[in-house]
Amino acid sequence: MIAVSINEARLYDRFQTMNRIGETERGGLHRLALSDEDKQARDLLVDWFKELHLTVRVDDLGNIYGIKPGSDPSAKPVVIGSHLDSVPKGGKYDGTLGVLAALEIVESLIDEGVSHEQPVIVVNFTNEEGARFPKPMISSGVLSGVYQTEDMFQLADDSGITLGDELKRIGYAGEKDFRLKDVDKFIELHIEQGPVLIEQQAAIGIVEGIQGLSWHEATFIGEADHAGPSPMSTRKDAAVGAFKAMTALHEWVLSLEDETSITFGRIAVEPHVVNVIPGKAVFSIDIRHPEKEILEQRIDKMKQILTETALRFDLDSQLEDLSFMPPAPFSQKLVQDLENVCLSEKVSYHRMYSGAGHDAMYMNRLAETIMLFVPSIDGKSHNEKEESRWEDIHQCVKVMYELVKKQL
Amino acid sequence: MIAVSINEARLYDRFQTMNRIGETERGGLHRLALSDEDKQARDLLVDWFKELHLTVRVDDLGNIYGIKPGSDPSAKPVVIGSHLDSVPKGGKYDGTLGVLAALEIVESLIDEGVSHEQPVIVVNFTNEEGARFPKPMISSGVLSGVYQTEDMFQLADDSGITLGDELKRIGYAGEKDFRLKDVDKFIELHIEQGPVLIEQQAAIGIVEGIQGLSWHEATFIGEADHAGPSPMSTRKDAAVGAFKAMTALHEWVLSLEDETSITFGRIAVEPHVVNVIPGKAVFSIDIRHPEKEILEQRIDKMKQILTETALRFDLDSQLEDLSFMPPAPFSQKLVQDLENVCLSEKVSYHRMYSGAGHDAMYMNRLAETIMLFVPSIDGKSHNEKEESRWEDIHQCVKVMYELVKKQL
Repeated sequence: MIAVSINEARLYDRFQTMNRIGETERGGLHRLALSDEDKQARDLLVDWFKELHLTVRVDDLGNIYGIKPGSDPSAKPVVIGSHLDSVPKGGKYDGTLGVLAALEIVESLIDEGVSHEQPVIVVNFTNEEGARFPKPMISSGVLSGVYQTEDMFQLADDSGITLGDELKRIGYAGEKDFRLKDVDKFIELHIEQGPVLIEQQAAIGIVEGIQGLSWHEATFIGEADHAGPSPMSTRKDAAVGAFKAMTALHEWVLSLEDETSITFGRIAVEPHVVNVIPGKAVFSIDIRHPEKEILEQRIDKMKQILTETALRFDLDSQLEDLSFMPPAPFSQKLVQDLENVCLSEKVSYHRMYSGAGHDAMYMNRLAETIMLFVPSIDGKSHNEKEESRWEDIHQCVKVMYELVKKQL
Repeated sequence: MIAVSINEARLYDRFQTMNRIGETERGGLHRLALSDEDKQARDLLVDWFKELHLTVRVDDLGNIYGIKPGSDPSAKPVVIGSHLDSVPKGGKYDGTLGVLAALEIVESLIDEGVSHEQPVIVVNFTNEEGARFPKPMISSGVLSGVYQTEDMFQLADDSGITLGDELKRIGYAGEKDFRLKDVDKFIELHIEQGPVLIEQQAAIGIVEGIQGLSWHEATFIGEADHAGPSPMSTRKDAAVGAFKAMTALHEWVLSLEDETSITFGRIAVEPHVVNVIPGKAVFSIDIRHPEKEILEQRIDKMKQILTETALRFDLDSQLEDLSFMPPAPFSQKLVQDLENVCLSEKVSYHRMYSGAGHDAMYMNRLAETIMLFVPSIDGKSHNEKEESRWEDIHQCVKVMYELVKKQL
C-alpha cells in the first residue's frame, strides 16, 4: 500500500499564486490587514474553499472558516490555520504558509478519504500582525475573551480608518454566530522567525508554548550640565548611569545561560546635545522567559540591578511597567503526539518555546493547542528576505498532516 | 593714604539695572543676541560709556567698544570685557558680569586718576553664546581670523533671520575700520560655570587656558531583529555594543584620574521599537584635555577602545570626526602677574583650565590673554539658577583691577 500524503506541488503552486497578491519588487510581501490586497487574498482563499466544497463562514471579526464537516455535527472541531495579512514590506512565509498548509491538509484528508466525526476547520484570522491596526492577534484575542469586540472594531490605522469600517468596505463583516466557540484542538504551522532550528539542524520545531514577556520603561534622572566645566568626579550623568545599568543587565542575563532574553529597543537622553551631560535617560526593557515563576524572579532581579546601579551613580530612578504577558504553555498531550509523529516519521525535531506571539497564544485559552515551526533561513523574518527551504516546509506539513489525523 | 579701589555698590547697582532687561519670571535672563532685549542692553551700555566720556565705537560685527584713551594714541590697547547676550532662559552672571566688571574697572581708573599711555577698552562681543545664531564666539573668531566675515553675517536663527540683517535692524552694524586689530592684552572676567572653585574653597580661578576638545560621532552597525525569537547568543545588538563601548570609555577616563573628560551627549538607536533589537546605534563623544599632545593620545586610545568593543560584539563601527579645537594656553606672564596680585592681596586662588570656550580663546590669538573665574554656586550655569556670591565677585573685580593697573 502506498502511503497517501500531502501534495507538495499543489501546496507550492498555491503559495506562488497567493503571494502574487501584494508581492513587492524585492520578492517580499506587503499585504496589510483589510487592505485591497488582503481582500483579494481572502477572495482567493474562499474560492479554493468552494472548489473543495468546504462550508464557508465569515464571523463578525472577519475571520474566515473553511469547514469540512465530520460525521457528528455536534462534535467540537479541530481547527487549523493562521493568517494572510503581513507587516509592511514583510515576507511571504509568515502566516500565509500556515493557512495554505491547513488547506493542503484538508484537501489531503479528502484525497485520502479519511472519515472523521469532528469537523475540521481551516481558519484565516483577521489582523494577526497588528501592523495596520495596532493590536496584534486581536481577533483570536476577542474569540478567547481577552479583548472586547468594540476594542477591535474601533482600532484605527494611521489615517484614522477603523478596523470595523474596513471590514464592511471589503465585504468581510460576517455573522457573530459564526464565531468559533467550542473548539477541541487548535494546531498552527508557522515559520520560526529565529535561527534556532537551523543551528540545531532540526527540520521541525515542536513549540511547547509561547514565552512570557514583560515590558518596562526605566527613567534615570541626574543633572544636565556643560561637558566642559564639569569634572568627571562631580557629574550626575544620567546617560552613563543608564549605559552601565543596561550593561550590567545584559551581562547578568548572559551569565544565566538559560532562555532568559533582554532587549533595550528604545533609548532617549535629554537634552541630547553633544556638549551637555544628559540629565535624563529613558530606556525600554523587554524581558522574556518561558516559565512564569522564573520570569517573575527575573523581573525582580532586574529591578534590583536597576535600583542599585542608579544609587551607585547618585541618580534617581523610576521604573514603569508597560505590559506583562504570562507564558502560555501548550497542550502537553499534543506535544507528546507531535513528538511521536516525528519519531515514527524519523524527522529531526527540536522542542522550543516561541519568542513571538501568535494566534495560537490566545487559542490556547479555548482549546488544546500546539504549534509547529518550520526553520527560517538566517532566522530572518518581518523582512523581504524571509525564506524557508521547501524540503523543510514539505516535511513539516507532512508531519502536521499525521498529527491532525491522530486527533480525528 | 587710603587705597582707592573699585566701587562695589556701583557695580552691584549696574548689574541689577542691566539685568532687568530680559529678566525671566524665575530670576534668570533671556537676552538672545541681537534681539530687542540685546539692543536695549547695548543702548544702556553705550549710555554708561558716554556718561564716563569714553569714546564709543561699534565695528561692522556689532562689537561695542568704550575707549579710555591713553597718553600715547599709537600704543596698543589693553582690552577688557565679555558679552551681554545670553542663552535661552539662562543666568544673569554669564557674560554680563565680565562687561560690567570691565566698566567698573575703567571708572575706577578714572576715579583714582590713574595715568597710562595705552588706551584701555571695554568690549561687548556680539553673539558669544551661539544660542540664537548657531556659532559661538563668532565675532572674536572673525577678529582673530578663525572665521570669515561672511560666515558670520549669513548665520541664520531658527526663523531664518540672518545675523547681518539683525545687526542692521537694531542699529549695531558699525564700521569695519573700528575693529580691534593690534591688541596688547585681553583680560576677561567670567563665572566658572563649574563646581571646582567652590570645592577648592578658592575665591578666584586663575585660568591658564582653554581646554582642547574633540567631537566625534560613533556608529555601531549590527542586525535588527525581533526580540522574541532571537536567542541572546546569536544577536548582533548594536545598542548593547554601544552601551558597552561607552561604559568602557567612561571607566577608562575615570581610571586616568587626570583632567580628561568624556561626555556622551547624544544617542539614537534604530529602529527604536520596544521589541526590536537595535541594528544601529549612533552616539556622540566629546573628549577634552588641557594639553594638545595628551588630548591627541586620548583620542587615539578612545578610537582603539571603540574599535575593539565593536569587534568583540561582531559589529561594524565607524567614527566620524566632527570638530577639533586644540587647547589654548593663555599668557604665562599674565598668569604669573595674576598669581602675584592674589598673593599680595591675600586672596585664595586656584589655577585651572576652562572647560568651556570663551571669546578669550580667540582673543588669545591676537593678544596676550588671561581670564579670571568667579566661583559659581553649585557650579550651575546656562540655567536660571546660575548664581555667584557678591563677596567673591567683588574680590575678583578688585584683583582684576590691580592686574589691569599692572599692565598699564
